[in-house]
Amino acid sequence: MFNPSDHPHRRRNPLTGDWVLVSPHRAKRPWQGQQEAVDHALRPAHDPACYLCAGNTRVNGERNPQYDGTYVFSNDFAALLPDTPEAAPASDPLFQSMSARGVSRVICFSPDHSKSLPQLALPAIRQVIDTWCEQSAELGATYRWVQVFENKGAVMGCSNPHPHGQIWASSFVPDLPGTEDVQQRAYFAEYGRALLLDVVEREAAARERVVVDTEYWLAVVPYWASWPFETLLLPKFPVRRLEDLDDAQRLDLALALKRLTTRYDNLFQTSFPYSMGWHGAPYLSADAVPWQLHAHFFPPLLRSASVRKFMVGFEMLAESQRDLTPEQAAAQLRAVSADQLYLDAD
Amino acid sequence: MFNPSDHPHRRRNPLTGDWVLVSPHRAKRPWQGQQEAVDHALRPAHDPACYLCAGNTRVNGERNPQYDGTYVFSNDFAALLPDTPEAAPASDPLFQSMSARGVSRVICFSPDHSKSLPQLALPAIRQVIDTWCEQSAELGATYRWVQVFENKGAVMGCSNPHPHGQIWASSFVPDLPGTEDVQQRAYFAEYGRALLLDVVEREAAARERVVVDTEYWLAVVPYWASWPFETLLLPKFPVRRLEDLDDAQRLDLALALKRLTTRYDNLFQTSFPYSMGWHGAPYLSADAVPWQLHAHFFPPLLRSASVRKFMVGFEMLAESQRDLTPEQAAAQLRAVSADQLYLDAD
Ligand SMILES: O=P(O)(O)O[C@H]1O[C@H](CO)[C@@H](O)[C@H](O)[C@H]1O
Ligand SMILES: O=P(O)(O)O[C@H]1O[C@H](CO)[C@@H](O)[C@H](O)[C@H]1O
Repeated sequence: MFNPSDHPHRRRNPLTGDWVLVSPHRAKRPWQGQQEAVDHALRPAHDPACYLCAGNTRVNGERNPQYDGTYVFSNDFAALLPDTPEAAPASDPLFQSMSARGVSRVICFSPDHSKSLPQLALPAIRQVIDTWCEQSAELGATYRWVQVFENKGAVMGCSNPHPHGQIWASSFVPDLPGTEDVQQRAYFAEYGRALLLDVVEREAAARERVVVDTEYWLAVVPYWASWPFETLLLPKFPVRRLEDLDDAQRLDLALALKRLTTRYDNLFQTSFPYSMGWHGAPYLSADAVPWQLHAHFFPPLLRSASVRKFMVGFEMLAESQRDLTPEQAAAQLRAVSADQLYLDAD
Repeated sequence: MFNPSDHPHRRRNPLTGDWVLVSPHRAKRPWQGQQEAVDHALRPAHDPACYLCAGNTRVNGERNPQYDGTYVFSNDFAALLPDTPEAAPASDPLFQSMSARGVSRVICFSPDHSKSLPQLALPAIRQVIDTWCEQSAELGATYRWVQVFENKGAVMGCSNPHPHGQIWASSFVPDLPGTEDVQQRAYFAEYGRALLLDVVEREAAARERVVVDTEYWLAVVPYWASWPFETLLLPKFPVRRLEDLDDAQRLDLALALKRLTTRYDNLFQTSFPYSMGWHGAPYLSADAVPWQLHAHFFPPLLRSASVRKFMVGFEMLAESQRDLTPEQAAAQLRAVSADQLYLDAD
């Protein structure tokens, strides 16, 4: 008889319509491939060579202020620029293009060069949240999409360990949120409810994929996770965008983030790399879409601090594939502490 | 005025419907991130520790024969298995799953441990092509999809430098080819022609994205490439699947593959890593779809043998983004030899 903990199967992501191939029996294969460098460096609170530390000079000659909370500045090498001229519409269906406008900013989470999110105190995390909210509201007045995200760890292309994230705002709704928009609308049209509110209710009851559960927030390894320890951070209440969160919800979000990233760091006793980011309702759109705000965490590690999952070959050409079930991943994350970081254990 | 070589813009991939953000001005930013290990190891023609070399024993105790061309065997840690039981259909729209059947095979390209594709002689490459064709025909009799692919290089998760690829056959059409199927049908319904035959005609005339041009094959950096040096290898004639290629087309494909991979190796004077794979018409389907066979090459390198593009953050959460135009990438590839490998230069 079919058993999802043993047998290969596919699961469908209702936010994107994509499937993932789950091969639970495959986690047993020996690993002979690339080992990632594990970063155990102890860092100073201020690094004179870091272009994100307070008071230091960046590549373009500008000097960072003596900031003591978060600090936001324009990316010196922005992928999007505010003043791109309009392009003439392309008529050829095979060679379609459009001009793109936007801005790209960097947000330092803390002046302390040595601390990542789980190491920050709750008030400092709350300040990061408030900055995300302010930036979203400000940029959402001009741009259709505001992508708040963090790349953490050298394995995720992050060139500087100073705790920081990015905010890219664009004149267009990019592919993935565009797909989530379509899927959330379709679900609402069919069931009259917000897709992710139904998910959060179901997951809170089932519990097998829950990783962190606070008063207002629930983090789960989603049923359809592609990355081994991917999580989805969901509000338990209806909310469309970051800036719509009230004081209590933000305070509690700081706690949820601290717990989730603490579990991540504890899992393989390493500063856990990931890309994370927020998806909320697009801006400047006429209708009120049944959007639910949520954050995705996409971490690459698979078996240890030095063995990652490679999304290559079959994954690039055909479909995502994973080697342990989301339920197994959630159980592993629940088995480590959410409150005490391995670094601080005595 | 808008100029696509200078200004940020988006381009649309007609095979998937996805867009890519092109930021040509961004290639100038300094790189302070992770450096990849560059593999300059000289390898022996036979490595007693390699589980793919002729006569050696694999992890499961089986011994490889003394093969002298290509050699195909079942993957000892297959992600897909032929005998998975059927799963009961799921009724919940948020938690959809289906059981998956399939097989996964490994194909050694040559007994010579030290040679990658561009280093093989044309008759040896032709043998790889014939094996791809045979495997596709054989597995296509049972499975709806046959994914032929190669992961090359440690940076692509490839655990063994012995020249080899994989073949995964599945009872379902995976996401990406499923999307290509939808897009090719829609184009055919609207224009009465095969999408990729129109592309190949347009590219052969425009020339600015052409990388390799032989009698029957054209390799281009597609107008909508996501990866910096991504290429699309296209037949100039209508053909749906690998096994439908005739003798002359296969012979000429060996030449096109040798030239393309030679240019790749010469670009950064390194054994160029990539994932590549073939897409042909799905099997066991009632109707004759206007499919065109094609191969995708997805190489990760961006600036040198040790600096790769990271598809993280904005790319994972929002949309693909590239830092040089496809036309610039094609010009760089055309500027290096297609005939003589840098290793053999005197
Ligand atoms: O089967 P391999 O080569 O050990 O594994 C590699 O290729 C597979 C198919 O592309 C991927 O799923 C794995 O993540 C990758 O490490
Ligand atoms: O802007 P950074 O951090 O230098 O660059 C990093 O994040 C960007 C946005 O996710 C990616 O496009 C780059 O490939 C990556 O290296």
